[in-house]
Amino acid sequence: MQRFLNDPDDIVDETVAGFVRAHADLVRLDPGNPRVVVSRLAGQQGRVGIVTGGGSGHEPAFIGYTGRNMVDAVAVGELFSSPTAKSFHDAIRAADGGAGVAVLYGNYAGDNMNVKMARKMAVKDGIAVETVVANDDVSSAPLAEREKRRGVAGEIFMWKIGGAKAATGAPLAEVIAAAQKAIDNCRSVGVGLGPCTLPAVGHPNFSIAPGKMEVGIGHHGEPGVRIEDLKTANAIADEMTAIVLDDHNLPAGTEVAVLLSGLGATPVNELYVLFNRMAQQIEARGLVIYRPFVGNYFTSLEMVGATLTVMALDAELKLLLDMETACPGL
Amino acid sequence: MQRFLNDPDDIVDETVAGFVRAHADLVRLDPGNPRVVVSRLAGQQGRVGIVTGGGSGHEPAFIGYTGRNMVDAVAVGELFSSPTAKSFHDAIRAADGGAGVAVLYGNYAGDNMNVKMARKMAVKDGIAVETVVANDDVSSAPLAEREKRRGVAGEIFMWKIGGAKAATGAPLAEVIAAAQKAIDNCRSVGVGLGPCTLPAVGHPNFSIAPGKMEVGIGHHGEPGVRIEDLKTANAIADEMTAIVLDDHNLPAGTEVAVLLSGLGATPVNELYVLFNRMAQQIEARGLVIYRPFVGNYFTSLEMVGATLTVMALDAELKLLLDMETACPGL
Repeated sequence: MQRFLNDPDDIVDETVAGFVRAHADLVRLDPGNPRVVVSRLAGQQGRVGIVTGGGSGHEPAFIGYTGRNMVDAVAVGELFSSPTAKSFHDAIRAADGGAGVAVLYGNYAGDNMNVKMARKMAVKDGIAVETVVANDDVSSAPLAEREKRRGVAGEIFMWKIGGAKAATGAPLAEVIAAAQKAIDNCRSVGVGLGPCTLPAVGHPNFSIAPGKMEVGIGHHGEPGVRIEDLKTANAIADEMTAIVLDDHNLPAGTEVAVLLSGLGATPVNELYVLFNRMAQQIEARGLVIYRPFVGNYFTSLEMVGATLTVMALDAELKLLLDMETACPGL
Repeated sequence: MQRFLNDPDDIVDETVAGFVRAHADLVRLDPGNPRVVVSRLAGQQGRVGIVTGGGSGHEPAFIGYTGRNMVDAVAVGELFSSPTAKSFHDAIRAADGGAGVAVLYGNYAGDNMNVKMARKMAVKDGIAVETVVANDDVSSAPLAEREKRRGVAGEIFMWKIGGAKAATGAPLAEVIAAAQKAIDNCRSVGVGLGPCTLPAVGHPNFSIAPGKMEVGIGHHGEPGVRIEDLKTANAIADEMTAIVLDDHNLPAGTEVAVLLSGLGATPVNELYVLFNRMAQQIEARGLVIYRPFVGNYFTSLEMVGATLTVMALDAELKLLLDMETACPGL
């Protein structure tokens, strides 16, 4: 492995330590749990707290979305593994300011189980906790079974909208409703061109043959819907856009936010090559790109590939999307 | 090649087109030259213009540093190749607001030649043009021959400081002096763990054997000062920090800005692992990290590796570093 590594068992602790050092103006470690990253503004009295969490290896997600008018506390898991229930619980306690906490996380078995347990513990503490489960990955289940879909980069929009709504002083039910609307309005798809390697494992977590690509791949290398011959960037962009928009089925004139994220090892210039074509395709369907994001927003170690997320907007979502934010990831 | 590509000859045009689409709030294409990206705030009357330029494949550099209180216009070259003299000339014209233009660029033969020609053309137009040549790469020549050193990620600090000084309304000579001080105060080093491939060439531009690393590598794969066995992340961090700080020789108590950039295919979490150790080493020398930057700021296609840049600060540089900025890269 040509990687920057010490002991693979230390990678998450070292990542979090380096992250907190690099962004000490915005975040701190929870004093009682080194697997909880907390915004320096967390716990403001009377304001709904925003919590998320997930496995490591997706940086800047999840920790990078901690900050002002965004996520208040993040539970940090091992590479590609759910945080513990205790870490979610500690994150909820750190985020609580007496107005309740919205836990906005992705639809994975471990996260579902641990958030459920953490919620029970927090309710015993007297903290009101409600959840939104992100399920924006179109390829992971049919639309009729949306509750089975995985959460991917649409989570960033869910956090942005939820954090902004909390910043308006809205009560918990309204924060939950805004975050739920955000993720309901999101559709995502991933395409993989190359695998990644968990350092402790030492070999790639799946394989993609040279000249092939995996359409619908998940953030941890979960199998996609099909393996195809590697196409041109424009053909891939067309395919990704079609998968997302066919599922979305938005009326012409709809304003959308678009997020194109590299998966870790994709050169930045290629993301712009993809986006150039995707934007044309989105506009060709009569949609209006209100705000685009292109970069490494939600990665999977050194996987080669990209994910496209489209969120349909309304007046409230536009206002919340535009609210001033300070976090390392955006 | 497992890459997102159309015709390799189109990659720069498509990158620029996607970039301008994605960041249309901040930038536009020059109407007369599709290889010049211009800030929407460029050409303000009475304000010194800031120009840079360089080869493509380093995104978000160079185009990503166009914006408010940063670079006004960027000349865009082919992958890893200098922009033309005409593009530098057109960038100078786009940036000019009657108070002259500072061209802040890196020390490469093609750029030196083309900026020199562009300057002559611009002077004929009646535009005052002065230049600063970045030479922060410690490994590319001894300190006694600093004028031979290459420019690398220290250029980002040079642009930030130059752009901020221009924003204060300072005259050209003072903008040049501030940018010169910024780069004089920078030292950088790169370490490569894996090569990159120019799509039109189709094979890696150099090779690094598995289990080896190249210390002092340049942004285009220029040979480093030595090939070593691949070490732990901490040992690499120690070596990079020592190379930079031994050359810098700063008195204890000096405040510094630190920029750690991935070279394209390095997972983001590994940058934090490196930074965690580098920060400890920098502080162990009695230096004070005033502001750190960790991310993909100046890449080399999908090269695996990282560069470390340390800029020594004084009161003026701190003020200018902290000035509000809006550009895609920061």
